[in-house]
Amino acid sequence: MVSFVCISQMKFDKEGNVTSFEKKKTELCQELSLQTRDLRFQHHTSLTARNNCIIIRMETLRAVVTPQCLLVLDFRGLGLERWLVLELAHQLASHTNPLPFEFRALEAILQHRVSALQARLNEVHPVILDTLESLVDPKLLSADRTKLHVLLQNSKSLSELETDIRVFKDSMLKILDEDEIIEELCLTKWTDPRVLEESSLGIDHAEEMELLLENYYMQAEELGNDTRELKGLIDDSESVIFINLDSHRNVMMRLNLQLTMGTFSLSLFGLMGVAFGMNLMSSFEEDPRVFWLVTGFMFLGSGLIWRRLLSFLGRHLEPTSPPPVAHAHTRTITFLFRNSSS
Amino acid sequence: MVSFVCISQMKFDKEGNVTSFEKKKTELCQELSLQTRDLRFQHHTSLTARNNCIIIRMETLRAVVTPQCLLVLDFRGLGLERWLVLELAHQLASHTNPLPFEFRALEAILQHRVSALQARLNEVHPVILDTLESLVDPKLLSADRTKLHVLLQNSKSLSELETDIRVFKDSMLKILDEDEIIEELCLTKWTDPRVLEESSLGIDHAEEMELLLENYYMQAEELGNDTRELKGLIDDSESVIFINLDSHRNVMMRLNLQLTMGTFSLSLFGLMGVAFGMNLMSSFEEDPRVFWLVTGFMFLGSGLIWRRLLSFLGRHLEPTSPPPVAHAHTRTITFLFRNSSS
Amino acid sequence: MVSFVCISQMKFDKEGNVTSFEKKKTELCQELSLQTRDLRFQHHTSLTARNNCIIIRMETLRAVVTPQCLLVLDFRGLGLERWLVLELAHQLASHTNPLPFEFRALEAILQHRVSALQARLNEVHPVILDTLESLVDPKLLSADRTKLHVLLQNSKSLSELETDIRVFKDSMLKILDEDEIIEELCLTKWTDPRVLEESSLGIDHAEEMELLLENYYMQAEELGNDTRELKGLIDDSESVIFINLDSHRNVMMRLNLQLTMGTFSLSLFGLMGVAFGMNLMSSFEEDPRVFWLVTGFMFLGSGLIWRRLLSFLGRHLEPTSPPPVAHAHTRTITFLFRNSSS
Amino acid sequence: MVSFVCISQMKFDKEGNVTSFEKKKTELCQELSLQTRDLRFQHHTSLTARNNCIIIRMETLRAVVTPQCLLVLDFRGLGLERWLVLELAHQLASHTNPLPFEFRALEAILQHRVSALQARLNEVHPVILDTLESLVDPKLLSADRTKLHVLLQNSKSLSELETDIRVFKDSMLKILDEDEIIEELCLTKWTDPRVLEESSLGIDHAEEMELLLENYYMQAEELGNDTRELKGLIDDSESVIFINLDSHRNVMMRLNLQLTMGTFSLSLFGLMGVAFGMNLMSSFEEDPRVFWLVTGFMFLGSGLIWRRLLSFLGRHLEPTSPPPVAHAHTRTITFLFRNSSS
Amino acid sequence: MVSFVCISQMKFDKEGNVTSFEKKKTELCQELSLQTRDLRFQHHTSLTARNNCIIIRMETLRAVVTPQCLLVLDFRGLGLERWLVLELAHQLASHTNPLPFEFRALEAILQHRVSALQARLNEVHPVILDTLESLVDPKLLSADRTKLHVLLQNSKSLSELETDIRVFKDSMLKILDEDEIIEELCLTKWTDPRVLEESSLGIDHAEEMELLLENYYMQAEELGNDTRELKGLIDDSESVIFINLDSHRNVMMRLNLQLTMGTFSLSLFGLMGVAFGMNLMSSFEEDPRVFWLVTGFMFLGSGLIWRRLLSFLGRHLEPTSPPPVAHAHTRTITFLFRNSSS
Repeated sequence: MVSFVCISQMKFDKEGNVTSFEKKKTELCQELSLQTRDLRFQHHTSLTARNNCIIIRMETLRAVVTPQCLLVLDFRGLGLERWLVLELAHQLASHTNPLPFEFRALEAILQHRVSALQARLNEVHPVILDTLESLVDPKLLSADRTKLHVLLQNSKSLSELETDIRVFKDSMLKILDEDEIIEELCLTKWTDPRVLEESSLGIDHAEEMELLLENYYMQAEELGNDTRELKGLIDDSESVIFINLDSHRNVMMRLNLQLTMGTFSLSLFGLMGVAFGMNLMSSFEEDPRVFWLVTGFMFLGSGLIWRRLLSFLGRHLEPTSPPPVAHAHTRTITFLFRNSSS
Repeated sequence: MVSFVCISQMKFDKEGNVTSFEKKKTELCQELSLQTRDLRFQHHTSLTARNNCIIIRMETLRAVVTPQCLLVLDFRGLGLERWLVLELAHQLASHTNPLPFEFRALEAILQHRVSALQARLNEVHPVILDTLESLVDPKLLSADRTKLHVLLQNSKSLSELETDIRVFKDSMLKILDEDEIIEELCLTKWTDPRVLEESSLGIDHAEEMELLLENYYMQAEELGNDTRELKGLIDDSESVIFINLDSHRNVMMRLNLQLTMGTFSLSLFGLMGVAFGMNLMSSFEEDPRVFWLVTGFMFLGSGLIWRRLLSFLGRHLEPTSPPPVAHAHTRTITFLFRNSSS
Repeated sequence: MVSFVCISQMKFDKEGNVTSFEKKKTELCQELSLQTRDLRFQHHTSLTARNNCIIIRMETLRAVVTPQCLLVLDFRGLGLERWLVLELAHQLASHTNPLPFEFRALEAILQHRVSALQARLNEVHPVILDTLESLVDPKLLSADRTKLHVLLQNSKSLSELETDIRVFKDSMLKILDEDEIIEELCLTKWTDPRVLEESSLGIDHAEEMELLLENYYMQAEELGNDTRELKGLIDDSESVIFINLDSHRNVMMRLNLQLTMGTFSLSLFGLMGVAFGMNLMSSFEEDPRVFWLVTGFMFLGSGLIWRRLLSFLGRHLEPTSPPPVAHAHTRTITFLFRNSSS
Repeated sequence: MVSFVCISQMKFDKEGNVTSFEKKKTELCQELSLQTRDLRFQHHTSLTARNNCIIIRMETLRAVVTPQCLLVLDFRGLGLERWLVLELAHQLASHTNPLPFEFRALEAILQHRVSALQARLNEVHPVILDTLESLVDPKLLSADRTKLHVLLQNSKSLSELETDIRVFKDSMLKILDEDEIIEELCLTKWTDPRVLEESSLGIDHAEEMELLLENYYMQAEELGNDTRELKGLIDDSESVIFINLDSHRNVMMRLNLQLTMGTFSLSLFGLMGVAFGMNLMSSFEEDPRVFWLVTGFMFLGSGLIWRRLLSFLGRHLEPTSPPPVAHAHTRTITFLFRNSSS
Repeated sequence: MVSFVCISQMKFDKEGNVTSFEKKKTELCQELSLQTRDLRFQHHTSLTARNNCIIIRMETLRAVVTPQCLLVLDFRGLGLERWLVLELAHQLASHTNPLPFEFRALEAILQHRVSALQARLNEVHPVILDTLESLVDPKLLSADRTKLHVLLQNSKSLSELETDIRVFKDSMLKILDEDEIIEELCLTKWTDPRVLEESSLGIDHAEEMELLLENYYMQAEELGNDTRELKGLIDDSESVIFINLDSHRNVMMRLNLQLTMGTFSLSLFGLMGVAFGMNLMSSFEEDPRVFWLVTGFMFLGSGLIWRRLLSFLGRHLEPTSPPPVAHAHTRTITFLFRNSSS
């Protein structure tokens, strides 16, 4: 049923002529001696040779390459028009490339695919670097949540890009691993007798095809390396962010502990003042020196005990001194003891 | 012993007739010239050719394909009835597919398997995305525990799905790697002499079989890519959740520290009030201005020292200024000390 | 020297007779035309064919299979007696299996090995699931340390099991990858001329051997998948445990902060009371309304400033959209407030 | 230039004679018909056959095996003397092994290498297990830093060991994968015509060589499995350490929160006392019952509000099902309460 | 168009003469019978043989090797001049190497590449070790942020280095896997008839080429192992840093909790003093002993309740076995207690 539906097509021939029309899928199949099944384009990324045609799908781009022309199918509404009209036609018509038409067509399409992948990497790469740089900033007490959100979004895009690069590499590799398929991709070799003569003059089509595919395979490989490095950088940065946040927390906790020590000292000696504030007879009520004595003792005492606690904390947190740890510990305890009993 | 037990069977023939009956396993084996061992279906997922039959198990579905018919064994109570009756019979009888019966049967079964895997992914995918989105929400101070539970359950389902997809892919790949097995799967080729003639007219059965299996392999591959991306997203989101929780903690800790500073300041200067509250002679009792002086000093002093502590904290947490850290540190300590000893 | 030591042996022949005796290793070697080196059983898991014998070691089980009998060596003290006497003899003597003796012996041993691996998985699997379920429980403020210990012990067992499964799979795969070794394992084929005739009647020994080994390879593969899933579940659960603990911590920290705010407010306004408590002249001493004024001001002031701090905290922690959570939050705060002011 | 330098050599011949001397590298090369380049020993681990010699480097051990003798080069100062003199000579001279000299030499060297690797594992294994056991101890509030340091050092050693094992395995595997190299390693086969006759009598040199190498490959594989398991155990233990530390923190934080609640309650009702302590007229000054009333109210009120806060906390932290944990919890709280109110 | 641009070239011939000049790319291609496409140097690292030339790109170095000379293209501004002039010329002219010119040229270039990779590792290796050592220092309460930044930078460099090493290894491996390409790289073999004669005398060019490439492959492999170990060390150290920070936090939290307990005790008994400080009649006003009684009770009571809380904490944190640690601990607590109560 589906095969009676008209599909839009744009046709690029060897001379650089571009025509665009609608045709039934069945007619197209008959014309190219293909089966409708061959034009189902079920997989996201595929490149196969069937009956002297190369059938390509690269994400949204669906194309059929014959020795004479390139047909782009269902090209509307995919944002490809600009590239098709401005670049592809020009590229296919260039006569500087001595290789047959199918090489030029394949090269143009693979180039377009790799460029698209590269463009996606170029989009997320600076955003991730920027976001990481600002998140890793050691001055920040807490991570900026909007930045985290941006990072998460871009990590997701990066994962998707990684998958697409891998799928592209796998489909190239599958062809490169089988010489038979490479031979099939050299359409002109089978149709054009002159080629065989040329071939004896030095250019081996299959070898050229292998070089062409390998070139794009390696470009994808380089893209894959870049994404992997970027993922690694995200992981490393996250560790640093955690260490930063933990460090800040420890610093604040030490400050907090130091102040708690102060408050404790003040409470301890304040209790003395509270005691003398009771409406009870202490027999010192009339001695004018006692006020100053007790007041001074309260302030000095709090200060001294705080100082002692701080130095205790200082020693407690840096337990590196040569004597074994257990030993050092009991010593700190006796110190503390002498403090509080003074 | 087990072989004397009757097993329910549903038989689909080329013409679309469906019959369902019970038969002893031994009889079935004799009829198909198979050994009882061949119908043990020991592995979760398997696809083998034995004696001009294709024996398939896909999780709950056990089937035998012959050039003339498809037998589904033990089909009761597996929730397959709906599919068997409504879809499978229709699919097998369709004459639009020019390929022999075993191709149609295999395609129907593999399609069913891949659809089942896809359905499981479709079930967990949105739940995981939703749960992650709500867990990653930076406004949340603490993670919603019911959401965590949902996430854990779905991660587990995802892992199981990943295993099943991998097992399916491996069983396809094992066949695709051995041309011999592919040949064996083309049942009609060996039984029907007309096929060999046809084959010379253009359709190569083995090649068609390879395409068929490869198609489902690649669909499973795409499913596998999706599950891997989803797992990656869970990992990335967990990192973000941790950073969020840590950030919240740091923010609260800073607020807490600021208030502890305030309480400390109030305690420090409150000690003065406590001192004057003692029932001891300070000789200022009669001077009416001293009350206001001391009260003002207490409030102002607390305020000033708090302000000082806050600005100290501000500087302490952003230690980017050029002087070396160790130096800055000793200074902060002496500063702190001057405070406490004053 | 070692070869003069007697080793205990249990012999199972084709008819199901079991004899057990002691024999010198050298004698055994001569009898089987093996070299002493062949019976060193150096590796944990091995399966090799040497001079028309199959030499097997599966962890504690050391065995030699000949076309006529199965010798289990050094069988004492390994906990194997029960299996040897009760199951193995019975299995080997069963005449339902039309295949030669070495197939039955190999099947029994491999079956025993896979069952042992399965048993180990069955042992750790429910313990790990139980432990994880109780550790993941979001109600728990802190992880139960005995449960953690159990988890660690079982993770270790799981890792060891994973290694053993992999080693078993690798040893199977090594054989499956080399047709030559499979041929060598079919002992009867080389010794019994009738077999070659039979073989022409339909049963190919090598193919049967491949099926047999592949069967156990796939069973081990399924075990391996289960262990991997279990490991994945442990990892996922640990993440959830961490998020749970962190969430609890954040909730407690917020409560703590709210109370610190309260204490601060009380300290601030308490300072006023302390001021009036000083034995200094404030000139309000005689006015009876001032007592109530100041007391009311202290309590009300503390309450108001606390409320202000709480709402500040509320806004501070939810810096984005005010509506949903913030609202729920202020409600909990007002509830808290009603408690404390009652 | 380097080739004119004398290098120390120790020569072991078939009869067990050991001689040690110095010789120029060039002379050595001429003698063995090797090129100087062949004796550069550039890689850490290598085993190659060149011109009817086997050239081996296993970390510090550099050796050349000929059909007649084993030359150990540069043997001084490597701690090898003990092994060379006490063990190697003995091993090479043993005539119990019917295989040619190069087999004995290779076996001795590979055995030495695998033993060295095993010894390194035996060294780190118990240290890591001990350290982990003490670090994982749930009673510990904080990790012992010296233990952490020991763990880090041993993890590093383990990584290095893992690399060395992998390098050894790879070099064995490279040889095992190419039958040609195995043939080249059987030196005697090419030089001694009698061997070919023997070979027809049953012993195939190449097969024996393969068995020999495979044996050490598998021993290294087992070592590799052990290191991998140990690494896994370190990772699992670290997770448990983190959960332990987090749990301790949460428990302490709850205790802290409970005390903060107490302090808050005391502050709140203490404010009342402060109010009555002011030198202002409350008109209750003369009523003797008011003192007890207010004092009682202060203590009771603090207690009640604390209790309320504690039960609020209890409910807040267990927001799901009230029965099991909450109950146990309130018991600990009432216990605490009984303490503090006694 | 690009091909009309002049490119700078430095030519090294067999005799060690070095000339440097500018030439159009097209001329160069004609001279070497190459196609312009062959000199595009699209990939970061490549080594191919085309039409009896070896075309090499190693990052910035672009070179063409012919049987007679080595051409380095575009050599300006890459920091290569020093190496080209001082080392390369000398290395190529050395006649100690009996192998043809292309071997010397290839060796020099690969040596240069591996040295460059090694130099990069040598640069980051000590920095990372130093940074980790100072970060892992258990004395540090918080991680030094500048050190973290240095670590992150160097981790990034390490990742990039890892990628480059892998790319180099892959390009070597690709050649080593195909004997055909190795043959093509032996330029002299095809051009110089004398070589074939020599070859019969013992030196096989292809084998020598394989050894040469394998040598650099293995050097890169060793570099790769070093980077992997370094990455592992970073991961392990980060775990230790986290455990350290967590431990410090727990220690501080315990100290804080102990002080909070003290402050709570003082508040509780201070409330008594506050009560007696109220201007209300307690009927004890005139009894001189009551002052000392209440004061003593306040101090003693605070001390006792603090002791109780501390021992409660001690028990709470070590809930398992009493003997070893708990004992040591209660001792520290009683110490502490004696402090506070004295």
